[in-house]
Amino acid sequence: MGVSANEVIEQPILLREDLNGITTLRLNRPQQYNPLSSEMLTELQQALDDISNDANIRVVIIAAQGKAFCAGHDLKQMRSNEDKAFHQALFEQCSRLMLTINRITRPVIAQVNGIATAAGCQLVAACDLAVASEEARFAVSGINAGLFCSTPAVPLSRNLSRKQAMHMLLSGDFIDAQTALEYGLVNQVVANGELEAATRAMAEKIVAKSPLAISLGKQMFYRQLDMELAEAYEFAGERMACNMDSKDAREGFDAFLEKRKPKWSGR
Amino acid sequence: MGVSANEVIEQPILLREDLNGITTLRLNRPQQYNPLSSEMLTELQQALDDISNDANIRVVIIAAQGKAFCAGHDLKQMRSNEDKAFHQALFEQCSRLMLTINRITRPVIAQVNGIATAAGCQLVAACDLAVASEEARFAVSGINAGLFCSTPAVPLSRNLSRKQAMHMLLSGDFIDAQTALEYGLVNQVVANGELEAATRAMAEKIVAKSPLAISLGKQMFYRQLDMELAEAYEFAGERMACNMDSKDAREGFDAFLEKRKPKWSGR
Amino acid sequence: MGVSANEVIEQPILLREDLNGITTLRLNRPQQYNPLSSEMLTELQQALDDISNDANIRVVIIAAQGKAFCAGHDLKQMRSNEDKAFHQALFEQCSRLMLTINRITRPVIAQVNGIATAAGCQLVAACDLAVASEEARFAVSGINAGLFCSTPAVPLSRNLSRKQAMHMLLSGDFIDAQTALEYGLVNQVVANGELEAATRAMAEKIVAKSPLAISLGKQMFYRQLDMELAEAYEFAGERMACNMDSKDAREGFDAFLEKRKPKWSGR
Repeated sequence: MGVSANEVIEQPILLREDLNGITTLRLNRPQQYNPLSSEMLTELQQALDDISNDANIRVVIIAAQGKAFCAGHDLKQMRSNEDKAFHQALFEQCSRLMLTINRITRPVIAQVNGIATAAGCQLVAACDLAVASEEARFAVSGINAGLFCSTPAVPLSRNLSRKQAMHMLLSGDFIDAQTALEYGLVNQVVANGELEAATRAMAEKIVAKSPLAISLGKQMFYRQLDMELAEAYEFAGERMACNMDSKDAREGFDAFLEKRKPKWSGR
Repeated sequence: MGVSANEVIEQPILLREDLNGITTLRLNRPQQYNPLSSEMLTELQQALDDISNDANIRVVIIAAQGKAFCAGHDLKQMRSNEDKAFHQALFEQCSRLMLTINRITRPVIAQVNGIATAAGCQLVAACDLAVASEEARFAVSGINAGLFCSTPAVPLSRNLSRKQAMHMLLSGDFIDAQTALEYGLVNQVVANGELEAATRAMAEKIVAKSPLAISLGKQMFYRQLDMELAEAYEFAGERMACNMDSKDAREGFDAFLEKRKPKWSGR
Repeated sequence: MGVSANEVIEQPILLREDLNGITTLRLNRPQQYNPLSSEMLTELQQALDDISNDANIRVVIIAAQGKAFCAGHDLKQMRSNEDKAFHQALFEQCSRLMLTINRITRPVIAQVNGIATAAGCQLVAACDLAVASEEARFAVSGINAGLFCSTPAVPLSRNLSRKQAMHMLLSGDFIDAQTALEYGLVNQVVANGELEAATRAMAEKIVAKSPLAISLGKQMFYRQLDMELAEAYEFAGERMACNMDSKDAREGFDAFLEKRKPKWSGR
């Protein structure tokens, strides 16, 4: 018995695997290079919203099936809709997802296996951390199709120095994984065969920390970035005192002073 | 017949060459290392203002005659005027030019052939992109003459990390082209003999894009940088929907999907 | 006659050496890796406040006795106080010191001889400049004890790109001196035996400049960083005109034009 075309079409667009506090969300349209269609964005948004309410999930990995990571929006879908309102809604949906990645209290790691272009490059930039295969390549290539990657520019320009970001946006050129590492777009570059293991190792290291401290810390980090220096220190000091006033910090300090492994309660 | 001293003096201070949508503005006081005297600033401002109103010009290259790029303000001119109002007016004129480079809707590329010091280094930092000869060197050396490079610090500190910028400003030391590349002050370093060609190639790549998308994009890029994240996404999404609603984006998408070269109308 | 335990305890917690306009403040609790206890913070604050009123001091070096630079707060002290108000006061005291380093009109250089962790890493990040031994290592390791390094994140995220900072904060991992150099956390890495000399050379270079220009410049630098571009240029232009209107700038320009060494008056 063969597989019908219908069954192929009904493959879930996003795969979710949960293991030891780590959720991997895997873009699953490998033939089309995993575009951020409105359906894919909806699925990703729903998954992150679910994770927000699930205290068992401590780290999220965004990965991709096939040889590409994500080729950005679905150009056919975009072009087949002449309506400006449709496009604005699509970009809003995409921005909402990127803001959710930024605001969700669990670290989100991009696991970049191949090309990451336009909104796919945005997705990498918007994550807290990123691990890339040495075969990964990055571009904000909308400019080649007459569309400046404006929303991708938002997180890209907050990862790279401005001339580097500007050059990628104006030229549409690819940068390789090593360059992405030097520019600060990714944290680590590994051989292709080691990508899953390296990303998981990064996630596991974070899972081993106090959930409370990670959660408070991620929120604090991005909020203080937009503040003037004195205000940032004041805000960070308050948050750190709250963190110190937790069961986890007391346990962590005791464990450190007693040279033993801490046991986190998440409180 | 010889050339009289008078004729030498009357060499234009700024040369302009237009070719295939690219304007090269060439600082032309090579003997004095192309200082940003008030006359030079006036000429550059006028040229950029003219280009603002000329839809045929798509990219601007700022280059220099001789072996230096630009040695900053004219120290003799500055010192011969004891008047604080004169200096304030000079710095305002210079800042106005830097802001014009930032706001003009065409990408501006610095083509750095030799030393770029003080306001000359500022000029490189203020451009959107920069290509440097491997012989180029950069310093904000005012501090050696008792004058902290305050206005150069503005774009420099928006290109480099703050300790790197601070060290250049406090020490007055030169960095070489390779270091400037690593710091994000320039985008590319090439052999001296390839500087013109490499800069032109970068410019031509941008000229091949939709003028509309480049123009919208450059404006969007710098404006969103000063915004908080959610505001930046909202602004960028609106601009991108406007861009998508253009004839050029429709043509670009069709060309991409039909695997042919796009024909831009600039609308 | 032997040394009593009491005399050992009474070793000053902070050593101060003044030489040729350079003050070295040396953390002096080598056995405990020089923790930023409330006593150490008090001593550092007092020393910097004194220096603020002493026109003879032109550059401050923060160095450390022993093989570590600074291992952050005193964990025993922190843990032995269950009171949230105590911790908040400690972080406020620490933030006040970091802001003082930022606001004092003399450049402050961190001389990093060994590990710099948590608030010790914050101290490096908060300085204007930093020189590190090749044996130095850096971490914001509070997360390993259940305490996210929130106040260290403030200057760290203003030195490093955000994914690099985020990885250090979430993982607690060490980076070595070379990586710290590439990330922009330090300005220079030297062999261990050359650390004192290299830091002093950096300080002496700054002492050779006009005190007035350095003082105006440092203040201007950080203030303009929080401004929007046009506002930053306006502010910088005003400050630079004030600087130009000084005796030191006139002397500096004359010396430059006459190819002689300037004599600064600090006015």
